[in-house]
Amino acid sequence: MESLIASTPAPPYYVVVFTIVLAEDLEGFEEMGNRMVELAAGQPGFLGMEYGTGDLDLTISYWDSLESIAPWRHHAEHTLARNLGREQWFQAFKVRIARVERDYEFRKEEGFGG
Amino acid sequence: MESLIASTPAPPYYVVVFTIVLAEDLEGFEEMGNRMVELAAGQPGFLGMEYGTGDLDLTISYWDSLESIAPWRHHAEHTLARNLGREQWFQAFKVRIARVERDYEFRKEEGFGG
Repeated sequence: MESLIASTPAPPYYVVVFTIVLAEDLEGFEEMGNRMVELAAGQPGFLGMEYGTGDLDLTISYWDSLESIAPWRHHAEHTLARNLGREQWFQAFKVRIARVERDYEFRKEEGFGG
Repeated sequence: MESLIASTPAPPYYVVVFTIVLAEDLEGFEEMGNRMVELAAGQPGFLGMEYGTGDLDLTISYWDSLESIAPWRHHAEHTLARNLGREQWFQAFKVRIARVERDYEFRKEEGFGG
């Protein structure tokens, strides 16, 4: 379960909500997405990522500061991927950068005993 | 396309990122989720919602202020739904409340002419 919900420190930290409306031709998209996850995870200040899809494609990434987000946004391979996306995979997207002020969590107690 | 990516005003505004690890028995979960979307949409200060699923269940809601989020959190029917979720549908969840400081978007130009 630890590997699913991103492990983030006590606030404040930052979240980038990347919402995509996908186009029809998704050839190469998943592969590129996996590469971007791998790259992002190696960036200074990266805290974690969560992903979900449906009518929209949602990628949530967590960062320690605004100062960590900017270099990732301008990273050469990331920029190339975004440009490919604009040409091929994305009908539309929105990126929102937000400062996490509060968080709380729930975790069901499991009977691990015995 | 307008109905997919939430229409939000210029920042600042707020985002609530609700990340769930679902349990196995999801009876009633979708119905309750739909009811919560309907209820949230009627709350003062609600701006929009985006949803995606996969290993995780991600619900992103947008609000005009912290003052609009608190009554929704404490709304009686919402509280009941969350309690049911803790008992039945949720293995774990995390809620993060964040202030959107910047956003930007892309929308592919389509040839609507002719």
